[in-house]
Amino acid sequence: MHQDKAPNSFSKAIASRSVIRLRREGETEAIDDSLTVEEPLEIRVNGRRFTLTMRTPGHDELLARGLLFSEGLARDDDDFESVSLSTRCRDDGSELVNVVDVTLHELGDVPAHSWERSLISNSSCGLCGKASIEALSARVETLHDTTPIASDIIFSLPERMRARQSVFQLTGGLHAAAIFSAAGECRALHEDIGRHNATDKVIGQGLQQGWLPTGDDDETLVLLVSGRSSFEIVQKALVARIPIACSVSAASSLAVDLSQANNQTLVGFLRPNTMTIYCGSQRIVD
Amino acid sequence: MHQDKAPNSFSKAIASRSVIRLRREGETEAIDDSLTVEEPLEIRVNGRRFTLTMRTPGHDELLARGLLFSEGLARDDDDFESVSLSTRCRDDGSELVNVVDVTLHELGDVPAHSWERSLISNSSCGLCGKASIEALSARVETLHDTTPIASDIIFSLPERMRARQSVFQLTGGLHAAAIFSAAGECRALHEDIGRHNATDKVIGQGLQQGWLPTGDDDETLVLLVSGRSSFEIVQKALVARIPIACSVSAASSLAVDLSQANNQTLVGFLRPNTMTIYCGSQRIVD
Repeated sequence: MHQDKAPNSFSKAIASRSVIRLRREGETEAIDDSLTVEEPLEIRVNGRRFTLTMRTPGHDELLARGLLFSEGLARDDDDFESVSLSTRCRDDGSELVNVVDVTLHELGDVPAHSWERSLISNSSCGLCGKASIEALSARVETLHDTTPIASDIIFSLPERMRARQSVFQLTGGLHAAAIFSAAGECRALHEDIGRHNATDKVIGQGLQQGWLPTGDDDETLVLLVSGRSSFEIVQKALVARIPIACSVSAASSLAVDLSQANNQTLVGFLRPNTMTIYCGSQRIVD
Repeated sequence: MHQDKAPNSFSKAIASRSVIRLRREGETEAIDDSLTVEEPLEIRVNGRRFTLTMRTPGHDELLARGLLFSEGLARDDDDFESVSLSTRCRDDGSELVNVVDVTLHELGDVPAHSWERSLISNSSCGLCGKASIEALSARVETLHDTTPIASDIIFSLPERMRARQSVFQLTGGLHAAAIFSAAGECRALHEDIGRHNATDKVIGQGLQQGWLPTGDDDETLVLLVSGRSSFEIVQKALVARIPIACSVSAASSLAVDLSQANNQTLVGFLRPNTMTIYCGSQRIVD
């Protein structure tokens, strides 16, 4: 099995820049600040450019696996023949590009509009919100009821995630996504300037390690993302068959509707002492 | 001049859902919660589909204006012949779609890859970070030094923005972008589930009202966005020739490099008593 190494030797998640810190009283201080790196990555599938995303370098092969799985090009990890990252010159020699080359054993019917388009476009296909939900439901089976989890476990997850966010502590500039077991053990955690990228990376890791997508008899896994829950995040969790999706901030109307239509549990505003359960409350018990 | 109305009569920025609020002590409460609406919008240019974005309904025509300007399809508001929003059935009658139809007087050379692609892809064109900066510099003139602004004005902006964020106060689920005059007066403010959409809406308003892009003798305007500053946000501000870009959270490495290369002022972590000036500190004085 191809092993993903991180951080990649030729790219880093943190960069240093000289900045000025200004206090209201007028005091200024010149310091070296740690910034989150943002850099383009091209993903090619069977030799053809699939998309280009701005991401934080590191675990790029997991990002590609998770993304192509979310988008329906791969059903599980066996569909990947090879996934390899390289930095190379363009054909005209003009510049360096970060590229993940993916070879799929079988490249099914990728709709023409999926090539070279944004992920959000892929996932919603030009429809109104309701039709987007129906389009996904055609491709994803509704979740079964899985073993409930104690609310104390759910309440503990943000603190568990923060404790492991190494880059955020330096830069304050990253989103994070993590997947936890029913006992609250962290299975995967990744940070990225984009919440959707961080989610693709944790799902890519679960795919590669064989514990995603979950089967009906598996334990109840929980996805936690920093910030808000959008349609896109819920979609990724559903395709990976993760029964509980949580965020520390609000969920959008479409995220709630999509989650509810697929019998998923969606939690928002997950704070030390309160949470909002948008749907699927049967999976959270005292 | 075409006037943008908001909220559009057939779509709303807020939706209500029944949720459960759970307290750690085990107390549960069923309440009606206000959620931010997320819904797809298709933007067509001269009859051809340009992109599809997930956005919060409202001011969709401004969104289209700001976006097409940022992407270089329009140089100023005069390039727009018409911009109109409609909700209509697809040709096969299957569903309703929200569409903004834009007619440009002259449709210049839109690179083939700009159609049907994500905005981030558009703005970076498959390059490494450095090449992305060079590509934009070829299209945008470096900013001149403009009249400095007192730091007290800058410090006051987040509070001025929050005071006007009507939807956020209800849902807690929205990004906001605002443009302020040198005296701290709010010229435009919009909220959206996507920070880039909110930025497109305020820039679209400035375009339509004729005060963007700024000229070299104009007062120093300030863009403020909630959350983080990415490459994309700085790019939009540069194309609109907004000399100072601020965010309440971190900036990415590429955002700083792009801003610096164009003599812009970039501020992050704008808090009540401290701010980080990444570059262009000559525009902020005591």
